Amino acid sequence: MSSIQRIGDSPRWSDIVIHNGVAQWVEVANDMTTDARSQIAQVLSQIDDTLAQIGSSRERLLQILIYLADLEHGSTLNELWDAWVPRGHAPIRACVQVGLGKSCLVEMIITAAAP
Amino acid sequence: MSSIQRIGDSPRWSDIVIHNGVAQWVEVANDMTTDARSQIAQVLSQIDDTLAQIGSSRERLLQILIYLADLEHGSTLNELWDAWVPRGHAPIRACVQVGLGKSCLVEMIITAAAP
Amino acid sequence: MSSIQRIGDSPRWSDIVIHNGVAQWVEVANDMTTDARSQIAQVLSQIDDTLAQIGSSRERLLQILIYLADLEHGSTLNELWDAWVPRGHAPIRACVQVGLGKSCLVEMIITAAAP
Repeated sequence: MSSIQRIGDSPRWSDIVIHNGVAQWVEVANDMTTDARSQIAQVLSQIDDTLAQIGSSRERLLQILIYLADLEHGSTLNELWDAWVPRGHAPIRACVQVGLGKSCLVEMIITAAAP
Repeated sequence: MSSIQRIGDSPRWSDIVIHNGVAQWVEVANDMTTDARSQIAQVLSQIDDTLAQIGSSRERLLQILIYLADLEHGSTLNELWDAWVPRGHAPIRACVQVGLGKSCLVEMIITAAAP
Repeated sequence: MSSIQRIGDSPRWSDIVIHNGVAQWVEVANDMTTDARSQIAQVLSQIDDTLAQIGSSRERLLQILIYLADLEHGSTLNELWDAWVPRGHAPIRACVQVGLGKSCLVEMIITAAAP
């Protein structure tokens, strides 16, 4: 069977799983004491860090599924997103409001092509 | 690295991303001024259009994740779905209620095998 | 085009779809008359059954997306999950609160590497 690469040392979940040339991972803001704008900016920056870590890039994102605790933050998301996503190489995207853990205002599930 | 095909000209997202023989995309009704029955019918018809566009078919759907703004519309969804999904070739399916954007009553995330 | 294997005999959905070495399926508790602890335990046990059925194993899980009807059940989920997930081989995981069907307290979407 094909090999699976796992990154991260939490017993509860892997930070990143890579299989068949596709990396997938979940991001929430490292600092959740902050407001939605900060949490969204953190998550996008953390995605950059993960992409660099696995030798991929923003241009190789496949799908980002965005969970917001409040759709009122959608316009802030779009403002930060539009400045971040590479024109001509955008992933598919869905953005919905769900119940998130305490203090968590945004969570994203990311898939990207990986070497 | 494996190639990624992107379809669509929005700067914010791709309409379709194809990678490793799998196409993925998000559908919401083109006309959201209508009721749930119409929006669901539109989304299923738009999926047909996208499948034709990429040279795939209903028989090659892998997964459809359905977001409803109100689970009360589940019976309407099932009625339209059952008439649409090809017997013996159904994808896996999950259907949950989440907060969607204004006027949007249904959103689907689709993956299908692509040439 | 690559072949698709479908398991299950419901006309509405496949129980399992396997494509390109990846299996994906959706689990809800077989018995939904029970409380959250029982439903979560059932779903994890049913995942084991499905993994055995397709010749995979807990060590080959890629992603589990968890829907809870009430995030209050998150601590119960984590207790049962931590005893179940194989250390060093955990999938990525997201857990959010959404609206689920009547009596359904937990639903999971699973992807795993398959032979």
